[in-house]
Amino acid sequence: MPKTHPARRTTIMDVARAAGVSRQTVSNAINSPERVRPDTRSKVLQVVDKLHYRPSSAARTLRHQRAGAVGTELNAVADQPSDIALPFLTALTLSAARHACHMVPFASKEAFPLLSGYQDMVRRRLVDAFILTDTHPGDPRPAWLEEAGIPYASFGRIYDDPTRGYWADVDGAAGTQMAVAHVAASGYQTVGFLGWPAGSAVGDLRREGWAQGVKEHDVAAGPEGSAPQSLPEALRAAEDLLDGLAVGDAVVCASDVLALGVHQAALARGWTPGADIGITGFDGSPVAHLHSITTLTQPLDDIAEHLFTILDHQLAGSPEPVQAALLVPTLDVNTSTKITPKKGTS
Amino acid sequence: MPKTHPARRTTIMDVARAAGVSRQTVSNAINSPERVRPDTRSKVLQVVDKLHYRPSSAARTLRHQRAGAVGTELNAVADQPSDIALPFLTALTLSAARHACHMVPFASKEAFPLLSGYQDMVRRRLVDAFILTDTHPGDPRPAWLEEAGIPYASFGRIYDDPTRGYWADVDGAAGTQMAVAHVAASGYQTVGFLGWPAGSAVGDLRREGWAQGVKEHDVAAGPEGSAPQSLPEALRAAEDLLDGLAVGDAVVCASDVLALGVHQAALARGWTPGADIGITGFDGSPVAHLHSITTLTQPLDDIAEHLFTILDHQLAGSPEPVQAALLVPTLDVNTSTKITPKKGTS
Repeated sequence: MPKTHPARRTTIMDVARAAGVSRQTVSNAINSPERVRPDTRSKVLQVVDKLHYRPSSAARTLRHQRAGAVGTELNAVADQPSDIALPFLTALTLSAARHACHMVPFASKEAFPLLSGYQDMVRRRLVDAFILTDTHPGDPRPAWLEEAGIPYASFGRIYDDPTRGYWADVDGAAGTQMAVAHVAASGYQTVGFLGWPAGSAVGDLRREGWAQGVKEHDVAAGPEGSAPQSLPEALRAAEDLLDGLAVGDAVVCASDVLALGVHQAALARGWTPGADIGITGFDGSPVAHLHSITTLTQPLDDIAEHLFTILDHQLAGSPEPVQAALLVPTLDVNTSTKITPKKGTS
Repeated sequence: MPKTHPARRTTIMDVARAAGVSRQTVSNAINSPERVRPDTRSKVLQVVDKLHYRPSSAARTLRHQRAGAVGTELNAVADQPSDIALPFLTALTLSAARHACHMVPFASKEAFPLLSGYQDMVRRRLVDAFILTDTHPGDPRPAWLEEAGIPYASFGRIYDDPTRGYWADVDGAAGTQMAVAHVAASGYQTVGFLGWPAGSAVGDLRREGWAQGVKEHDVAAGPEGSAPQSLPEALRAAEDLLDGLAVGDAVVCASDVLALGVHQAALARGWTPGADIGITGFDGSPVAHLHSITTLTQPLDDIAEHLFTILDHQLAGSPEPVQAALLVPTLDVNTSTKITPKKGTS
């Protein structure tokens, strides 16, 4: 054991005295940095470290009867986890700190998403609330959580009752509409669409935005195709789609993997993405960045912040729910929609 | 508030009485399922839910003076987070539950990895220990954590003092050696190597395995090239490398992104990956799966389990450290090393 540790446990008053500030200032310096001047915080934290002061989060939790934590399930079953799962968890982790709590991930090899993992977290009292992802029609979690009186907020609509105000989602239709506006303004002629097979709620909305976009902008509607989220199938669907298009046209896609299929199919027939054919993806995933594909990036920081606002309201027992939020993605323009690539620049 | 909630807070004794078991059995059913028969556990958990019993984790924590949690930093700064960061966090989350604790991720937009985030987690007493990732020569974290007496274990060698037993890592040299053995056995003739620029500890070890492999197996050593972890640069380096190779040869790569560069460069000259040129990557990332590239998958579950064994020893105050572990990756064979692809199979 290091010799510098004091024999008696250091208290918050020891720190306050040594730093020449109030007990509340010490507490704020540790837990609510935004309430303290930076130089004061720095002085207090130096004393905290010198005296080896460790506030007892357990005692604090017991006082408030709160775990101070929000649970979220990681998908341990999918072969290919969602490309945005990690950036979203990172956004949640940063938001949590601003809302004086922390995230506790959990996972199960059994099934995803099912209730047992949520029940275990509640029984062990590790969290006060949950953030849901991968919502879908027939999802049992919202009803179970409401029945049990456990606060939650959802990334993705609550499909069985979208009037519930407990969610934030990306506006898929607005996104693909923006993509059409962008390729129209860039000078592409006819705009086709590669989506997922009809019937997926997310995919259908993204298709709707494309259909609306070609009506509103000065471009012709090209052919439509669909494929599941797999590169070989996207590639096959893209080959058929490109047969109905010509150099100077564009394809708006419902995902980055579908856009990669169009990208590879274009290269296979000697068309340069961007110069010969416009291609847009959706999600802002590493796949799009790796292959320089223009994409619609989800506003994950804003979504995380809105979900914590929803949770704060529920935890405070506020009777008026916060409004659900439909947030517009950002268009990240890359080589795949540059019709006249400049030579000689890196 | 739901009417079914009892007015008095339900205690563990209420549950034990209603389920006809001992208090310890109730505690085990919730916290240590492996110690209880499945039918007993199921009976106890039914009573737990019926009586709305919530064990107080805060009281338990205060008794043990432990947070029961392990912190790990998420990289909120990198444009392209590591492909295996999410699968590794999922593996840690599953291991944590087996070791009666949970993970608490933290992140900072300021810098990665620096000490301030770790100091904040310790000051707020949210965790008892840390799991480090992205270790590198000159990493300040191991020395600071040891000085402060905080248990930790590292995914990746502690480069400044690898004799420390606080780490588990993948055996990169053994991996690329396996890749050479595999392409040699598959019938490829000459085996080249595409690595990262010399000087990165991880990359140098992966190159060493290739060099050793071509000595031990019945193949000729082909040319070597290098590129940073970026697709355009990997593509350029791969074009040069392929100029020195012929149909029937193979390239072992230090990463999946580098392997994708070889894959794209091969397609550009009309060579079919697998049938005309063998290609292996490293890391088992989504990029490799997406493009059907043979890869070396890191044994993340075993690494997570070893790290928790290290932490358990430190938390128990055991004087003998657990041995560091160098774990061999798994070769996942895919189309890119199938020299005679079978026709007509899916």
